[in-house]
Amino acid sequence: MTHEYEIVMVEDNPNDAELMIRSLNKHQVVNRLIVLEDGEQALNYFFCRGKYSGCESARSPKVVFLDFKLPKVDGLEVLRQLKSNEQTKKIPIVIVSSSSQDTDIEAAYNLGANSYVVKPVEFAQFRERINQLGFYWLVINEYR
Amino acid sequence: MTHEYEIVMVEDNPNDAELMIRSLNKHQVVNRLIVLEDGEQALNYFFCRGKYSGCESARSPKVVFLDFKLPKVDGLEVLRQLKSNEQTKKIPIVIVSSSSQDTDIEAAYNLGANSYVVKPVEFAQFRERINQLGFYWLVINEYR
Repeated sequence: MTHEYEIVMVEDNPNDAELMIRSLNKHQVVNRLIVLEDGEQALNYFFCRGKYSGCESARSPKVVFLDFKLPKVDGLEVLRQLKSNEQTKKIPIVIVSSSSQDTDIEAAYNLGANSYVVKPVEFAQFRERINQLGFYWLVINEYR
Repeated sequence: MTHEYEIVMVEDNPNDAELMIRSLNKHQVVNRLIVLEDGEQALNYFFCRGKYSGCESARSPKVVFLDFKLPKVDGLEVLRQLKSNEQTKKIPIVIVSSSSQDTDIEAAYNLGANSYVVKPVEFAQFRERINQLGFYWLVINEYR
């Protein structure tokens, strides 16, 4: 099964990013996977600034997997900016976080996160969770 | 696996509702399943009006599965009202619709739908899709 989808992943932990990339590629659901390492890069990417200035069309990935604890600009601020902009507010954003605190979950939904998923600590469970995430947001969920 | 979760389903087609109920109950992921048959009932339920007047606390199901084409008040209007109210805007709302039209999908995301899923026409596929939906929103997604 092959789809022509773009996924954006904002993840500063290289181990987590690598695991997510391998899981998603293995299932051949992704043709284009953009990995951004901090919140500033993410905002530059979506709003065509900095090293992404001059991009021609609005970014519209099939889904964004956004970590919460990010360098430079945190995930909550990235979420707030993406969900308060008319061009980007429709893009499905899934928070993928190590935090299971109620305050973090509530803050995410208050800002318009589409879904909130806690990273399992155990390796095999984390890999399985990423597979389930990829399947749901790339195959089951409709967004064009 | 048993969880103490409430699901709300707004679905006017009794065959679809029955199939969804059976699929969700079979997997024992739901303790309390509220089925509402039209948009007016849904708004009354969430805002404690009509036959639901006098409900004591704010409704906070784990997820709402909302059909689009509903009698009395359509699903888009239900979505708009739930997502523009401070008490209810955080509740995950998944549009489960027979329509795969871009305009419907775009309208749903513009109003803040968390996810949009098209009902498969074929029976076994529909049942499988409901299982996947139940698993994702009750087991994987965090919302309290």
